[in-house]
Amino acid sequence: MWYRLALAVMLVLIPASLAAQNSSRSKPRQSTVAAVRAVLAAQQDAWNRGDIAGYMDGYERSEKTVFVSGDSITRGWQTVLDRYRKRYDSREKMGTLNFSEIEIMPIDRNTALVVGRWKLKRAGDEPHGRFTLIFKKTSQGWRIVHDHTS
Amino acid sequence: MWYRLALAVMLVLIPASLAAQNSSRSKPRQSTVAAVRAVLAAQQDAWNRGDIAGYMDGYERSEKTVFVSGDSITRGWQTVLDRYRKRYDSREKMGTLNFSEIEIMPIDRNTALVVGRWKLKRAGDEPHGRFTLIFKKTSQGWRIVHDHTS
Repeated sequence: MWYRLALAVMLVLIPASLAAQNSSRSKPRQSTVAAVRAVLAAQQDAWNRGDIAGYMDGYERSEKTVFVSGDSITRGWQTVLDRYRKRYDSREKMGTLNFSEIEIMPIDRNTALVVGRWKLKRAGDEPHGRFTLIFKKTSQGWRIVHDHTS
Repeated sequence: MWYRLALAVMLVLIPASLAAQNSSRSKPRQSTVAAVRAVLAAQQDAWNRGDIAGYMDGYERSEKTVFVSGDSITRGWQTVLDRYRKRYDSREKMGTLNFSEIEIMPIDRNTALVVGRWKLKRAGDEPHGRFTLIFKKTSQGWRIVHDHTS
């Protein structure tokens, strides 16, 4: 009768292992979406209190971080920080940043594709457009490694 | 002396297994880069013989395929094909397409991030810009599932 015992054990263990697999698949997905959303919210908040360095915290501090905009490509966290500081050298120029229609699509455990809209409300104009971001899970948390903004 | 034999066996097997690991890591990478490059080359060739459907073959035939450009987002292979056919309804309007500075960065076995420049040479103008693409390995081969062009 050993096989009855074996069968009983299998009937208990197999569903448990399937359940564990399911939860290990969906939980990282949910936590990825939450973590990425938090980074974008923190970027928006930092921008709107005039904190460009805080905004740049959302990007990986790497020379390989890529920024594509119009017909230009820029590489490196520091280069982009310097450029932002120069371009947005007053609270008026920074205006109020708003992200909307954010979609977060996990690619694997450590990578996510994100699309969304951005809008800057300023006294004189309201520039707006779309962004495609690649987020990577780094030792510092989820960070943008690739940004294509139009 | 059994441990001498064990040691000898390990000294043979461990480097062999490491070599196998390395090649299994780099070979898919190389084949991903080659396959993605071939899709882009086929797109460019199709465009330059006036074959919009052939060009669109580089994209996944899915309602989920995403095209971001300027401030607009468009979903669906068919929608984009229809739009291309309307917008580029003559050989003159299509001009000559050239992709350059293509960088292919595999994310995992089934996904790659690609950046590059595009240029259209036409009698009247020469529009140009950058693209960020996400390629997925599908049952039809590597196909673009996300395109952000500026």
